[in-house]
Amino acid sequence: MARLIPVADPADPRLADYTRLRDVNLRKSLEAEHGLFMAEGEKVIRRAIATGHPVRSVLAAHRWVEPLSDVLGDAPVYVVDDAVAEAVTGFPVHRGALASMERLPLPSVGTLLPGVRRILVLEDLVDHGNVGAIFRCAAALGVEAVVLSPRCADPLYRRSVKVSMGAVFAVPYARMTDWHGGLAELRAAGFTLLALTPDQSATPIGKAPLGERVALMLGAEGDGLSSRWLREADEPVCIPMSGDAMDLGVDSLNVVAAAAIACHELMRPGVL
Amino acid sequence: MARLIPVADPADPRLADYTRLRDVNLRKSLEAEHGLFMAEGEKVIRRAIATGHPVRSVLAAHRWVEPLSDVLGDAPVYVVDDAVAEAVTGFPVHRGALASMERLPLPSVGTLLPGVRRILVLEDLVDHGNVGAIFRCAAALGVEAVVLSPRCADPLYRRSVKVSMGAVFAVPYARMTDWHGGLAELRAAGFTLLALTPDQSATPIGKAPLGERVALMLGAEGDGLSSRWLREADEPVCIPMSGDAMDLGVDSLNVVAAAAIACHELMRPGVL
Repeated sequence: MARLIPVADPADPRLADYTRLRDVNLRKSLEAEHGLFMAEGEKVIRRAIATGHPVRSVLAAHRWVEPLSDVLGDAPVYVVDDAVAEAVTGFPVHRGALASMERLPLPSVGTLLPGVRRILVLEDLVDHGNVGAIFRCAAALGVEAVVLSPRCADPLYRRSVKVSMGAVFAVPYARMTDWHGGLAELRAAGFTLLALTPDQSATPIGKAPLGERVALMLGAEGDGLSSRWLREADEPVCIPMSGDAMDLGVDSLNVVAAAAIACHELMRPGVL
Repeated sequence: MARLIPVADPADPRLADYTRLRDVNLRKSLEAEHGLFMAEGEKVIRRAIATGHPVRSVLAAHRWVEPLSDVLGDAPVYVVDDAVAEAVTGFPVHRGALASMERLPLPSVGTLLPGVRRILVLEDLVDHGNVGAIFRCAAALGVEAVVLSPRCADPLYRRSVKVSMGAVFAVPYARMTDWHGGLAELRAAGFTLLALTPDQSATPIGKAPLGERVALMLGAEGDGLSSRWLREADEPVCIPMSGDAMDLGVDSLNVVAAAAIACHELMRPGVL
């Protein structure tokens, strides 16, 4: 049985986990300090719970509690009206319950790799929505794990979780501790490192050498992969662009579209 | 020479084109009534002008005027400070100039098709960002035209234009006037109609029959293609998903990722 606790004061300290959800800097420090993250909506909360994340608490209007009551255990459920929810979080919470969940310890890169043959490596992506969308692609298409550079945006940030539709819980990931040496560890584990680049002189992704273990490297929005990582790759690969498009100045895909195509190619039939 | 006109009053009627840019309903009626659209930032404004869209006016802080002065002709440039810009538009305008541009007459579907071999058909997409992102994919990958269902979101809405990076000016498009009969016109023009569906019993997109002329149909976020359009298609096609993903409940790609993969497959080497 969920423990329903009506709360009428937005300043109630029990609601502190839900403070100002649109304030990125505040949220980063608050979530790091308390080891928590936010899950929004029934579907995503269910997936977070199903993948073993303990519920710290739930914040919800009364109408959103019942659909979740079978999975909340004895976590406190702070029942608020819409005005209180908005006063605490800083935005109108229409779409359902919010849950404050405990983060699980991340595996190291070394413990992530055994048995895995197709991975993505994300270098310094800054946009949480893009990170979430790439996890969704990876999960849907069967990429088995994701490795993040030390500065890559957090997959458990609220917007990442939401855009991923919960795929951030489905695809195991780890964060490199060392940007300089991180790729060497992947190569030592037998991965061929493919660097995705808009450079049209690179090998088309459809013709890339796909060995037993492949790591596809994706760079930041705008800047792409760093020159150091490009140099360290085994092979630069590109998605062939239309010549007309380049004449028109539309010279690239966004990183999510590029990731989708690349994941699809990595998993093409006959290769695995 | 651009005509610089300092404006200090947010209520100045000459700024009416820029009113409340985040108010979707207001903008829809205002833009339809005046036949205008918004372009944001130097790159996008340049692309809009280069593709023949007349400039009605520009709204910009002084620092953003100079970089555009070679292309603005004698259009009025309303020079405002950041507070006035925010008071008019309803949000902080950091990223550069805003231009109010005239829409050009859209071609009919019939005049769009001659000479074109690969098109997308979008049914009732509601998210402007998704429409813009799909145009960006189409442009980058060489899809030659886009046909919109009568209720599909507007490619020239501000967010569509922005997310497309100006690709909405690069890819010709038309809007069907008749949802019931629209596909028949495409078939009569010799297009094979492929309906993209998450249904994994459909033909994998990589094995789809790609004839001389192919129209790939994409449905709305969430609901997908209508059952009527699915029935009218020549062949349902799918992007193969990972079995593990489906076990985990991550059972689909978002429409932009799906469109990217599908466009890439439509244009694969050896087919055209």
